[in-house]
Amino acid sequence: MINQKKVGAVIVAAGRGERMGGVDKMFAQIAGKPVLARVVSVFEACSLIDQIVIVLGEQNLERGKKLVAEEGWSKVTDVCPGGKLRQDSVAAGLGRLKDCHWVVIHDGARPLVTAASIEAGLEAAKETGAAVAAVPVADTIKVAADDRFVQSTPPRRSLWAVQTPQVFRSDIITEAYRKIRVEVTDDASAVERMGYRVKLYMGSYDNIKITTANDLALAEVIWQKHGA
Amino acid sequence: MINQKKVGAVIVAAGRGERMGGVDKMFAQIAGKPVLARVVSVFEACSLIDQIVIVLGEQNLERGKKLVAEEGWSKVTDVCPGGKLRQDSVAAGLGRLKDCHWVVIHDGARPLVTAASIEAGLEAAKETGAAVAAVPVADTIKVAADDRFVQSTPPRRSLWAVQTPQVFRSDIITEAYRKIRVEVTDDASAVERMGYRVKLYMGSYDNIKITTANDLALAEVIWQKHGA
Repeated sequence: MINQKKVGAVIVAAGRGERMGGVDKMFAQIAGKPVLARVVSVFEACSLIDQIVIVLGEQNLERGKKLVAEEGWSKVTDVCPGGKLRQDSVAAGLGRLKDCHWVVIHDGARPLVTAASIEAGLEAAKETGAAVAAVPVADTIKVAADDRFVQSTPPRRSLWAVQTPQVFRSDIITEAYRKIRVEVTDDASAVERMGYRVKLYMGSYDNIKITTANDLALAEVIWQKHGA
Repeated sequence: MINQKKVGAVIVAAGRGERMGGVDKMFAQIAGKPVLARVVSVFEACSLIDQIVIVLGEQNLERGKKLVAEEGWSKVTDVCPGGKLRQDSVAAGLGRLKDCHWVVIHDGARPLVTAASIEAGLEAAKETGAAVAAVPVADTIKVAADDRFVQSTPPRRSLWAVQTPQVFRSDIITEAYRKIRVEVTDDASAVERMGYRVKLYMGSYDNIKITTANDLALAEVIWQKHGA
């Protein structure tokens, strides 16, 4: 039975990190702790989160379970394997949540998430059942076809770079992922395709995604800046 | 008289750097040299560049002229004041170029530009007279109105984040900036509005723009990585 107040989190960390030069980004260190531990500990400490599911690549399952045991995270109920696409991994995680009315989906590779951002997402999602963290785009963005000739330059003020957390009413995101048949690059896209309205809420430029070794160095800088 | 082979560069460094917390980003240091010196020295050393014009904010003019004298850059002919908008600053710089057939416009806040990227831009511009450095967008981008509800999620594979160098035949960019009456966020946008075709050529994720203190720290990391 759905508990109207219960909030589950799915930490998606099944990517292969192919741009990290052989280092597994989930277990790369930031200020002496693995990226994955930085992420999960924020959710563990956030009072609004009731359950946490961690989705990992097959190669990291044992290492992830060991980390959960070592850290003693009480909210983590499952460490489960992901799928081929990111959306398969999210769907796998959603399947492990129990009785949650709200779902917070977060990239395992964004270790600088804060409890405040999770809470802001849950608040924003109340309006339509779907809210995603985003920041105004800093670069000029151009649309081009495969020939790389510019087709258009959309007005920058209308463009947002989306991040995670992405927060949904569980029935909406579950339906969206059950019905989707195309590849999407974020969870909200699946929900938008169902015709639901998605609200953007203000994320943070510090909430970077670790993709390259450059990003890992930058994460360390940001971490030190916050004196955490 | 236009020299068909002559290439001028306009380094646009008149921004106020309001997100740097009071530090003037053009004179912030990367590995012991000001950002502005890092940028200009790349253009000075690039064999295809004949003339360099540096556009600075009024408050930095004297400091800029002193730097040019100290560094002994032989290609720098002018250090001139910018205007209110970025495009006013570019137009001011264009007005100082002498007999150049090609113009390379570059953000003063992108100190990690390389001679190879300038050369690639000049090569790419041969086709239509206009080419800009760009990289595939890493984030999912959403279009939203002022109410922050998502209107659309354009396919990521068609989206490019543009950088500088932006390279133009001088008659094209001069005409574009003479006729433009709206604010644009990059030089190519002015050219596109005239109906010219603009080619994207592959930039580099290392060619970051210094906007915040985070970016400055990242630039230092990238600089060290290249062992320069």
